[in-house]
Amino acid sequence: MSDAKSSSSPDPAAANAMWGGRFAAAPSDAMQAINASIDIDQRLWRQDIQASKAHAAMLAAQGILTTEDEEKIQAGLDQIAAEIADGRLAMRRELEDIHLNIEHRLTEIAGDAGRRLHTARSRNDQVATDFRLWTAAALDGAMEKIDRLQRALVAQAEAHADWAMPGFTHLQTAQPITLGHHLMAYVEMSERDRTRLLQAKATTLGDCPLGAAALAGTGFPIDRERTAAMLDFTQPAANSIDAVSARDFALEALSALAIALMHASRLAEEIVLWTSPHFRFARLADAWSTGSSIMPQKRNPDAAELIRAKAARVSANYAALLGIMKALPLAYAKDLQEDKALAFESFDAFALSFDALAGMIETITFDKRALRAAAGAGFSTATDLADWLVRELKTPFRDAHHVAGRAVKRAEELGLSELGDLPLSELQAIEPRITEAARALLGVEQSLESRASYGGTAPARVREQIARWKEQLG
Amino acid sequence: MSDAKSSSSPDPAAANAMWGGRFAAAPSDAMQAINASIDIDQRLWRQDIQASKAHAAMLAAQGILTTEDEEKIQAGLDQIAAEIADGRLAMRRELEDIHLNIEHRLTEIAGDAGRRLHTARSRNDQVATDFRLWTAAALDGAMEKIDRLQRALVAQAEAHADWAMPGFTHLQTAQPITLGHHLMAYVEMSERDRTRLLQAKATTLGDCPLGAAALAGTGFPIDRERTAAMLDFTQPAANSIDAVSARDFALEALSALAIALMHASRLAEEIVLWTSPHFRFARLADAWSTGSSIMPQKRNPDAAELIRAKAARVSANYAALLGIMKALPLAYAKDLQEDKALAFESFDAFALSFDALAGMIETITFDKRALRAAAGAGFSTATDLADWLVRELKTPFRDAHHVAGRAVKRAEELGLSELGDLPLSELQAIEPRITEAARALLGVEQSLESRASYGGTAPARVREQIARWKEQLG
Amino acid sequence: MSDAKSSSSPDPAAANAMWGGRFAAAPSDAMQAINASIDIDQRLWRQDIQASKAHAAMLAAQGILTTEDEEKIQAGLDQIAAEIADGRLAMRRELEDIHLNIEHRLTEIAGDAGRRLHTARSRNDQVATDFRLWTAAALDGAMEKIDRLQRALVAQAEAHADWAMPGFTHLQTAQPITLGHHLMAYVEMSERDRTRLLQAKATTLGDCPLGAAALAGTGFPIDRERTAAMLDFTQPAANSIDAVSARDFALEALSALAIALMHASRLAEEIVLWTSPHFRFARLADAWSTGSSIMPQKRNPDAAELIRAKAARVSANYAALLGIMKALPLAYAKDLQEDKALAFESFDAFALSFDALAGMIETITFDKRALRAAAGAGFSTATDLADWLVRELKTPFRDAHHVAGRAVKRAEELGLSELGDLPLSELQAIEPRITEAARALLGVEQSLESRASYGGTAPARVREQIARWKEQLG
Amino acid sequence: MSDAKSSSSPDPAAANAMWGGRFAAAPSDAMQAINASIDIDQRLWRQDIQASKAHAAMLAAQGILTTEDEEKIQAGLDQIAAEIADGRLAMRRELEDIHLNIEHRLTEIAGDAGRRLHTARSRNDQVATDFRLWTAAALDGAMEKIDRLQRALVAQAEAHADWAMPGFTHLQTAQPITLGHHLMAYVEMSERDRTRLLQAKATTLGDCPLGAAALAGTGFPIDRERTAAMLDFTQPAANSIDAVSARDFALEALSALAIALMHASRLAEEIVLWTSPHFRFARLADAWSTGSSIMPQKRNPDAAELIRAKAARVSANYAALLGIMKALPLAYAKDLQEDKALAFESFDAFALSFDALAGMIETITFDKRALRAAAGAGFSTATDLADWLVRELKTPFRDAHHVAGRAVKRAEELGLSELGDLPLSELQAIEPRITEAARALLGVEQSLESRASYGGTAPARVREQIARWKEQLG
Repeated sequence: MSDAKSSSSPDPAAANAMWGGRFAAAPSDAMQAINASIDIDQRLWRQDIQASKAHAAMLAAQGILTTEDEEKIQAGLDQIAAEIADGRLAMRRELEDIHLNIEHRLTEIAGDAGRRLHTARSRNDQVATDFRLWTAAALDGAMEKIDRLQRALVAQAEAHADWAMPGFTHLQTAQPITLGHHLMAYVEMSERDRTRLLQAKATTLGDCPLGAAALAGTGFPIDRERTAAMLDFTQPAANSIDAVSARDFALEALSALAIALMHASRLAEEIVLWTSPHFRFARLADAWSTGSSIMPQKRNPDAAELIRAKAARVSANYAALLGIMKALPLAYAKDLQEDKALAFESFDAFALSFDALAGMIETITFDKRALRAAAGAGFSTATDLADWLVRELKTPFRDAHHVAGRAVKRAEELGLSELGDLPLSELQAIEPRITEAARALLGVEQSLESRASYGGTAPARVREQIARWKEQLG
Repeated sequence: MSDAKSSSSPDPAAANAMWGGRFAAAPSDAMQAINASIDIDQRLWRQDIQASKAHAAMLAAQGILTTEDEEKIQAGLDQIAAEIADGRLAMRRELEDIHLNIEHRLTEIAGDAGRRLHTARSRNDQVATDFRLWTAAALDGAMEKIDRLQRALVAQAEAHADWAMPGFTHLQTAQPITLGHHLMAYVEMSERDRTRLLQAKATTLGDCPLGAAALAGTGFPIDRERTAAMLDFTQPAANSIDAVSARDFALEALSALAIALMHASRLAEEIVLWTSPHFRFARLADAWSTGSSIMPQKRNPDAAELIRAKAARVSANYAALLGIMKALPLAYAKDLQEDKALAFESFDAFALSFDALAGMIETITFDKRALRAAAGAGFSTATDLADWLVRELKTPFRDAHHVAGRAVKRAEELGLSELGDLPLSELQAIEPRITEAARALLGVEQSLESRASYGGTAPARVREQIARWKEQLG
Repeated sequence: MSDAKSSSSPDPAAANAMWGGRFAAAPSDAMQAINASIDIDQRLWRQDIQASKAHAAMLAAQGILTTEDEEKIQAGLDQIAAEIADGRLAMRRELEDIHLNIEHRLTEIAGDAGRRLHTARSRNDQVATDFRLWTAAALDGAMEKIDRLQRALVAQAEAHADWAMPGFTHLQTAQPITLGHHLMAYVEMSERDRTRLLQAKATTLGDCPLGAAALAGTGFPIDRERTAAMLDFTQPAANSIDAVSARDFALEALSALAIALMHASRLAEEIVLWTSPHFRFARLADAWSTGSSIMPQKRNPDAAELIRAKAARVSANYAALLGIMKALPLAYAKDLQEDKALAFESFDAFALSFDALAGMIETITFDKRALRAAAGAGFSTATDLADWLVRELKTPFRDAHHVAGRAVKRAEELGLSELGDLPLSELQAIEPRITEAARALLGVEQSLESRASYGGTAPARVREQIARWKEQLG
Repeated sequence: MSDAKSSSSPDPAAANAMWGGRFAAAPSDAMQAINASIDIDQRLWRQDIQASKAHAAMLAAQGILTTEDEEKIQAGLDQIAAEIADGRLAMRRELEDIHLNIEHRLTEIAGDAGRRLHTARSRNDQVATDFRLWTAAALDGAMEKIDRLQRALVAQAEAHADWAMPGFTHLQTAQPITLGHHLMAYVEMSERDRTRLLQAKATTLGDCPLGAAALAGTGFPIDRERTAAMLDFTQPAANSIDAVSARDFALEALSALAIALMHASRLAEEIVLWTSPHFRFARLADAWSTGSSIMPQKRNPDAAELIRAKAARVSANYAALLGIMKALPLAYAKDLQEDKALAFESFDAFALSFDALAGMIETITFDKRALRAAAGAGFSTATDLADWLVRELKTPFRDAHHVAGRAVKRAEELGLSELGDLPLSELQAIEPRITEAARALLGVEQSLESRASYGGTAPARVREQIARWKEQLG
């Protein structure tokens, strides 16, 4: 057949030989620019080769390919993998995407056998399969980054299990807590983040699209169970139309990333606050600070700030993908091509952010004195007074609250820095039944010790939580 | 104590008696307007009472409340539940939120006992607990709606398992599929949606915040395992700071809703297309159509269009909540108050949309003739010709593709409507080895039958999928 | 005609008499729930009546309505306006929306004349006109709120034109600035916000849709110039299809609100920081603080926090409307019904936020000592040293930067709090040519005075800026 | 000075010589990865050189730089511009960004003079100035693309000014319109889009940040009016803190792009529909179609689909930038670094989309017969009947609507395809006063002619609109 040669010819127009059979004119340059995805999707090359190898093996096992053809294909694909890994295979934009680039090269290497690889599949199921494989691997990578952050947090929490610091609500001092307790809160969040990533991976590797072909399945006697198993999917997708149209796995992954980055961004915000001169709770290592071109005294937490920004971007990427999909009739439409750019950018942002966050946490140092001073400021033990009134005097809580409120007002009037400094006489002027024992409870350390309910900030409780996590992280 | 009386007094200023002890001035009207959440959060009343009852029972079991006080509280809460259910309890804006409204009423009913209920808890853990309970119930409701939609889809799929229709990619006719196959694609999507809702519920009822108090835990000897179990949580939250700060459960729920609504919106888009005069594939029941005030002939798919719009809104609500949280230092901040408005609106939009979608699918009727005519149009069986060439002549796939492409071009030139109408002589002019047997395969029904790979569109395969689902749905 | 009576009959089914002529069945309840917009769009009642009055006047002037009919209509509409204003007209859900509710009531009052009002218009141009009128009025309201905020900012800036405070970058102390200068930055932002609102109003009142009818115009000899002018539009829309499909005016308005709220949120973030115990730069008035149910010492900046949250919501509302519109073919589709809910919610959030922000700024008090102490901390005048080196010694800037950096390092080692405290000997050990005159420049006040470039922080410059604004605001 | 040499040394650590004076350790690799922006911001090189040249000229004019130094700087910058344009200057990542890369190269070329260029400015005002200059140029580019699209639309509208097609609402046939009228709707939208881009440009080039330095202004006697004028800004920014913190110009630009892309996406959606086999209204040129690897008969509107996707992305980019900024205290924070990536990506998406849209519109061909047949289908002239009843018989509009509705129902029962085919007897059975003259008005062409209100679809009106636009576009 005369076309055969042209489809492997090196001239640019040959690209359209893939599908241009009935077209009188070639695509315009602007069309090619908007249409080509090779700059983006070449990141899928490993997955494309992996899926093609499984497909070829199955076709041979089913007798659809000859053994000879399969051997040529497998060898050719291995050769291509080596070429790409070594940077020896230049991607060609006129070949549109990674799939056609690889197939084109395979045909150069393996001749007609290469041309037979595409039997019983289409770009639609091929790209859906490749993208799922890539996403699953990227989710594994993301989980590793969470693991590193958790270890860093647990180590810092252990080293500071009983350091007093202020617990904030509304960024107002609320009650004393321990630094270890505060850091462990992020370990809990991260664990839920990890669970979401794991669930996203299960969805991603749930249904294998390979063999769905363009959308309707194929008449070739293929074995979809076999390719699904070879590629570590749970099962072949039960509906071929859904197989090529679905991107909810990617949305689920992006949402898991976005939520995890939101948590990261909260911690980043705290790093920005803690390292600011008005808190001075902590100091970033030099390796995680930057300076200023005009203000030599600055130590800027740039990495923390960028994490906040990346959180906004990944959230937006999720919204973009939802927006792209929301009114697409089945099955494939080109709108979906943007899915990969959004996923790549999001996973990159995640990796960068979590590397930076773990790096900062591993090397950050805390200022014990500043934390302790802040812990007692703002009359942070007022609740302890209210609780004592309830417990010992059986004062209704709301009334106890009023008493404590007036004690705070008095301490403020007297210019005291901690509630524990208020003389007993002043307390008794508000509520005569308050005893010296009650007054003693208003110290920061006593307050910390007292909050020993499960999950509470008492150092003993915090150490239990840390111990559980050290065991779990192994 | 003199304050005791005022805190249960009916005058509006009393509201601030809850926390206004040390304030010299009352909040401004504008402040009250921005601060009050009662218009929104009164939907939590059932959960607030449920959680308070569990809390009171635990306090009594631990000896923190007397049995007498507990009885008064339980009776009072039951009475309040009845009053609210009957619309007899007017919510007061100056009491800010549902929690203070209920507590205030309880104090009216139960006196000092009512004031003691708030022992060992804070609004922070209370609202987090209530909101989780509400969300879990709402997720159950959402899953029921998915169930109804799935049943409607399966019923319609069964009735149309072998009706031919065009399968589209890029809204261009690609290959014939069956209507049953197409509808079942949505059953698969919905099942993944249901799984995500279920996982969101597990997260939501994972960690019980109750007892975390403001953020640091409490010194009262509470039993958090007990309240967690009474309220059907998996466990008490292991970190009290995380307990009051976390809203990722809500984000996970909103993301699950948003993705499910995206799927619903794709089906809605198809309903809009299918019922348009240019498709005429389907007709909505009168009960699901609207007319026009000026164009009497219109049958508008308003409900389908609104589903598309609701999908955009819930996606935006998720983004809003992420945006609210992304740079909040721990623990609670007032920004989080918007979480409930966003969740309520999203679950409402979901319920409305899925009710409408199920209603439309249950009553929609399809036009067999229009579907069949469209299935064959556009030379939709061209792939079948290419596949025959590969299978029988061992033509490399890419070359077979060219032959098929030229056959399409010829059929188009001749003004034929289906590829099966192309005379054998024309086919042989392109590729002499094409036989009459090959030509016969180009009919729509033959094409459908042939795509019998697992998950494919062959009616037998579709019926298998339907049978599995009927069993699963019970 | 027999239908005439039923269309004004009070039974619910009558609603569909508006468009149900050829329908065999009434809408399902769920359909009515999703379809009815009366709960939302009743806010348009003033605009609906205003536009109807203009339409009726024009119809009469063109001889399409008799004078008698017009008089009945005008009187009827006035009566309805009074009824709605007094809360005497109950809206009926089965009448779907505000337009049909008003028309229905008009027919009750004015009989056949009422039925003739809808001549030469459709709900599509009617709702587009009403919504534009509402939006324009809401934009006026928003601009007034900006005006109030600007006045509050200018007043506070004037009172604190020369108060030293730290200027931050990365939340690190960068250079001393004045509080007046800082506050005036927001006046500049607000002015650009006002300009955007004004431009959005010009777009909104640019093209009058009235007379576009359903989408194609009308055969009645209407005078669109007349209605456009009566309703204060620039001109009638030049294309009737565009007239009923366009919502970019609403998007432009929402974007202007979202950007303004972003600015408001930045100021709100600063209020949260400044009033936190670690800054203590400012104190909110009692009327703009809230307390805590368990922590009596708290003074929470709830309103500021809610502004941050509202900013996220309005941003999301804009995204939702874009998402709704992005793939709608022309002309009207029901998806657009959500436009009003999004706009109403956004303008409400804006009004609430700006009222609160202005209220807070009007009454906030600043702590001069805390601001001044912070202004000098962090060696904030290091740039002044670098600048002196450049100016006096002709040191290349990058080299001067190094010298200043080393001076900071030395001051830090010596535990000094301001760079001005570094002895001359220490400075000369780094760069021998530094003089006492240079050292003297490192004081906070000298630094402030020195930055006298246009727009700079020197008090004299700040006062000039304030003076310009006082004149401009009148 | 000893540092002088090292700051121009080629070793990587030298980068931090810019600000690393007081740091003991170099940034970690991960820190450098997250911090470096050179891969992104090198697109600003032209603007950076342009702004530096203006800055140097001003410094010399003010006597801050010697003439000799200025000459070296100007020559050096010109040389660098040539080097970058020719691809001869490799950007170095350890030099972080384009600004430091250029400055570093300038120091290599011009020695100490190069080091003096940064006098009286900071990276903060420098980057803000560069980014505004880039954005303004990009907005000009975007307006040119809109111009091209408008010309293409007007040309197609002129060629099809009186071609009948169906006007849709809810994607249901509503009334006949002309194709020219439909296309001209987009010209109106585009004009508002252009206005928004122009306003965004005015904001962007409103306030020149140069000379604001880090945030507080400078003590050097600079002339900000001069640099502002040289760079085509309206004025120097009146507040130096605002100058370096503001990014609302970028948000305004992104919003304008997003709204314009939303309009483009609506047209793209119509192209997808019109070229689908169920409409067949239009056919894309081969140069703007793609084929399928498995379905040779496909002509896919890929470019149109990608425009829809790009619309979602730019909307998300706007949301991301708002999300990044919403809680940033003044002044600069690193979060803002993402502004450029978002802007670059958005302007690129816009350019690609509008090139493609204009290309498609310029070359699309329409099918007159298919359009005409669809125009009459669906009883699209029912409103004309209702209007006749109102006009001639003085039937109240709502009653006329009922009559028309019953006529449609009857035509449907009789299987007629156009309402004009309904015999007079049938019409009179519904309303005896209907005349033959009325019946004649129900033809498509008569309907089009009749809608002659301003902006209406009557061909004469459409031609007037086209004529106005041809004059305006010149």
